[in-house]
Amino acid sequence: MKIAVLGTGMVGQAIAGRFAELGHDVTVGTRDVDATLGKTAPDRMGNPAFATWVATRPDVRLATFAEAAAGSELLVNATNGSVSIDALRTVDDADLAGKVLIDIANPLDYSQGFPPTLFVKDTDSLGEQIQAAFPELKVVKALNTLTAPLMANPAQLTAEHSVFVAGNDADAKRTVGDILASFGHTDVIDVGDISSARGTEMYLPLWLRLMGALNTPYFNVKVVR
Amino acid sequence: MKIAVLGTGMVGQAIAGRFAELGHDVTVGTRDVDATLGKTAPDRMGNPAFATWVATRPDVRLATFAEAAAGSELLVNATNGSVSIDALRTVDDADLAGKVLIDIANPLDYSQGFPPTLFVKDTDSLGEQIQAAFPELKVVKALNTLTAPLMANPAQLTAEHSVFVAGNDADAKRTVGDILASFGHTDVIDVGDISSARGTEMYLPLWLRLMGALNTPYFNVKVVR
Repeated sequence: MKIAVLGTGMVGQAIAGRFAELGHDVTVGTRDVDATLGKTAPDRMGNPAFATWVATRPDVRLATFAEAAAGSELLVNATNGSVSIDALRTVDDADLAGKVLIDIANPLDYSQGFPPTLFVKDTDSLGEQIQAAFPELKVVKALNTLTAPLMANPAQLTAEHSVFVAGNDADAKRTVGDILASFGHTDVIDVGDISSARGTEMYLPLWLRLMGALNTPYFNVKVVR
Repeated sequence: MKIAVLGTGMVGQAIAGRFAELGHDVTVGTRDVDATLGKTAPDRMGNPAFATWVATRPDVRLATFAEAAAGSELLVNATNGSVSIDALRTVDDADLAGKVLIDIANPLDYSQGFPPTLFVKDTDSLGEQIQAAFPELKVVKALNTLTAPLMANPAQLTAEHSVFVAGNDADAKRTVGDILASFGHTDVIDVGDISSARGTEMYLPLWLRLMGALNTPYFNVKVVR
């Protein structure tokens, strides 16, 4: 499948790399290609810059958001939540129409330091804001509840763990469920329409406290029933 | 131990019953004893009225919040989150001083219908509000992330699942951890100081969506690491 992964951070890298490994045709989208390739310092978590990472991945292309989306059959939003809607606004409407968007972004606000707060919550969500701004997209909120390496390679944890999909289009959720299964996810729970993104986004504060308590981001939850 | 369980709903009943089974001396606190004993209709979820339930439990006493707290060594807040602080204000300060309070309440606001929103979140929490209002208490947020029968009897799910404690006092968290272990909880995770109640309370919207998706409240999460 031709896939556009919007965002060059650790989520974008993990997802783009996994799609490429699985044989898909992957283009990563960024606001400014030259600026992205010009940054070589690791981020504050020590993750490699995109330019460093992509140099080892000849199977992954870099383009603008608009160019990446233009040729794609499926979109992934792996941008920072605070710029997701602006990023999507740079894409031609015709290149969004009818497509599935996997929205992994979280509405994290670091302006008051760590832990971040959420800039939208409880009565609305980033997933809903994206769906409302781009009604022609079929937005499926997914994978925003675990660390990037585990999104892409869930078998790094030996015990089974759960991921969630939320969206208004049943076929789009099935498509995303199949993709998550191809990554190795074995317990994908459909939590409802896109308003259920409120639930998965508001889980982030607990996730952040657990990361502190466990001293690692390499964990996830299994829904036991 | 002499325990006061404040609140007569399904959480209060489940916790009071479990403590009594385990040999503790349990008094349930309510605002108005006669009013509580006068209500015999099940709640809207079909759970028995307190009066019906307590008639089968001669080992559990009913008293006012203040009377229940007066004789207790440990307090449990199982009231509706919207009235928790008012309930505690009816207790003499001297009967709170130095005691551990297990805070199970959630800040659910049903005024806009179902699903409820949270009346405090993200930059504050009900657990913190209670700790701030009653600095003489040692508040430990716990058990607010699963359905009442599973709080009290976790072994009703065959696979292991996790519960969280958050509070400022390490000894109080150890005390609560021992109590949770006596209930049968085998994975109690200390998520940090009382501000971590933001995380466990903000998990409720996901819990509610999962309850809808799974069509049962009999589930919990296991933190897989």
